[in-house]
Amino acid sequence: MSAESRFLTLLRLLANDPAARGLQDDAAVLDVGGSRLILTSDTMVEGVHHLASDPPADIGWKLAAVNLSDLAAKGARPVGCLLNYALSGDDAWDAAFLEGLGEALGRHAMTLLGGDTVKMPQGSARSYSLTAIGEASGPVPARSGAQAGDRLYLTGPVGDAGAGLDLLRSNPAASGPLVEAYRRPRPRLAEGALLADHVHSMMDVSDGLLIDAMRMAQASGLSVTIDHVPLSPALELVSGGGTAAQIAAARAGDDYELLFAMPSSAKPPVKAIPVGSFSPGSGLTLMIDGASVPLPDRLGWEHG
Amino acid sequence: MSAESRFLTLLRLLANDPAARGLQDDAAVLDVGGSRLILTSDTMVEGVHHLASDPPADIGWKLAAVNLSDLAAKGARPVGCLLNYALSGDDAWDAAFLEGLGEALGRHAMTLLGGDTVKMPQGSARSYSLTAIGEASGPVPARSGAQAGDRLYLTGPVGDAGAGLDLLRSNPAASGPLVEAYRRPRPRLAEGALLADHVHSMMDVSDGLLIDAMRMAQASGLSVTIDHVPLSPALELVSGGGTAAQIAAARAGDDYELLFAMPSSAKPPVKAIPVGSFSPGSGLTLMIDGASVPLPDRLGWEHG
Repeated sequence: MSAESRFLTLLRLLANDPAARGLQDDAAVLDVGGSRLILTSDTMVEGVHHLASDPPADIGWKLAAVNLSDLAAKGARPVGCLLNYALSGDDAWDAAFLEGLGEALGRHAMTLLGGDTVKMPQGSARSYSLTAIGEASGPVPARSGAQAGDRLYLTGPVGDAGAGLDLLRSNPAASGPLVEAYRRPRPRLAEGALLADHVHSMMDVSDGLLIDAMRMAQASGLSVTIDHVPLSPALELVSGGGTAAQIAAARAGDDYELLFAMPSSAKPPVKAIPVGSFSPGSGLTLMIDGASVPLPDRLGWEHG
Repeated sequence: MSAESRFLTLLRLLANDPAARGLQDDAAVLDVGGSRLILTSDTMVEGVHHLASDPPADIGWKLAAVNLSDLAAKGARPVGCLLNYALSGDDAWDAAFLEGLGEALGRHAMTLLGGDTVKMPQGSARSYSLTAIGEASGPVPARSGAQAGDRLYLTGPVGDAGAGLDLLRSNPAASGPLVEAYRRPRPRLAEGALLADHVHSMMDVSDGLLIDAMRMAQASGLSVTIDHVPLSPALELVSGGGTAAQIAAARAGDDYELLFAMPSSAKPPVKAIPVGSFSPGSGLTLMIDGASVPLPDRLGWEHG
């Protein structure tokens, strides 16, 4: 068991309200007055969640986007957010970070409500947390709602962000659509809001299709088969699109598409790509070109 | 202008919703559905907000307490919180931190709703953020509501926590009520809830009586005179209670008593000590034993 898993076990002892959903979902669901609030928080750390060389405006954008993506997975409308920021000692860097954060907030009608600004001692990695509050107008999908026989869908292709990160690792000056996918993910808020009423289960793919699909299956007490790994034209082009490229895309993180389960008889109300199906039992199967392939050692990005 | 002030100026451009109160208050006040939510967030950094030698359980307690104190200043009932935690690489330390955090949450009927756990690169200072959500049932006092002629009150003495910190700096094994005041502050939730309906203005004293009273006066467009610096019997005993001791107590941070303004004709509904009064104009005057004394160079704990 990793240090994070041990810590989460202790954390769950403090999270005994049903609103916390056992800390096993993307967000908390809190009924206050006549409203249903969605609460989520993400921390990003330099060198862990982004490259030290990433432009600060893109890091700011991404911090907002990953939180907004959690709201999208719950079909929620953004209401406001709080920022915890450690000053970097570089005014221009901090200003650029805020510019990118502000762009993402403005684009998604999210306002800043508060937070805290601190100074870190010399030599500490940069880190930033955003806590986002959304409001749901209807049912709030959980990870645990998938049913045997459901089809599994994605709102878009996977692997672009991971390929963009690989490009940047070998060349920090790289650019193009894959780098853009890594640096400026688009939270699927409109899709999430349209889907929430119709899905059995929904989450965003932040850590990789394989690991996130397996989490949904585990939470739902089912097995899942991934039978299609959708690649973008840009990724097809650079990767060739073969079996190895599809496996790499299926375990790449940071895509922030929505992953959702619906009855196979229903038609998704948004553009979506069928990628798998749920059955009784447990476990994960990956099929490429109709044949089962061995799972990679690491299914995706695992924290801690 | 400090780096933090410059950063706050940029932050305010993103905080254009009235709920954010211009980022000039202890908390945001958000009306959702039929409820009035209070939102606040505090980050603590090792070596900045606490000593590296402080026991982890006390640090966890304090992180909860400082956030609960912001809710108290708004007269709010705790609803839930989200924790952003950087794993320290020391399981026992992390577990002890959570134990202290959990004690404070349990004591004040606050539940953990979610958050994020990350790993920091080697050599980074420990840091932790808590975002607290409360609910107000009536009016929510602001810093800016004091009126000329109002008396200024404290719910308890000041300086204990600062004296406790001084003791620990010279002897990490020190103990007793002053050290306890520094390590285990008590948020004044019951007092805050009783006061909210009656005060013109309220805040918690986190950075020191002088600087926080001046902030209330500035936000209210008034001048303030502090005419009494209440010391605890424990602090009287170790400090002698003379002028220098009173000035030190008035600029010491971390006390978390409530500071509030009421018409001089009214009687506070909780145990409280009158410490000053508001007049037209601007500025801060400190009087000790009936005579005005020069203000210290540093009025209190200023971030950044």
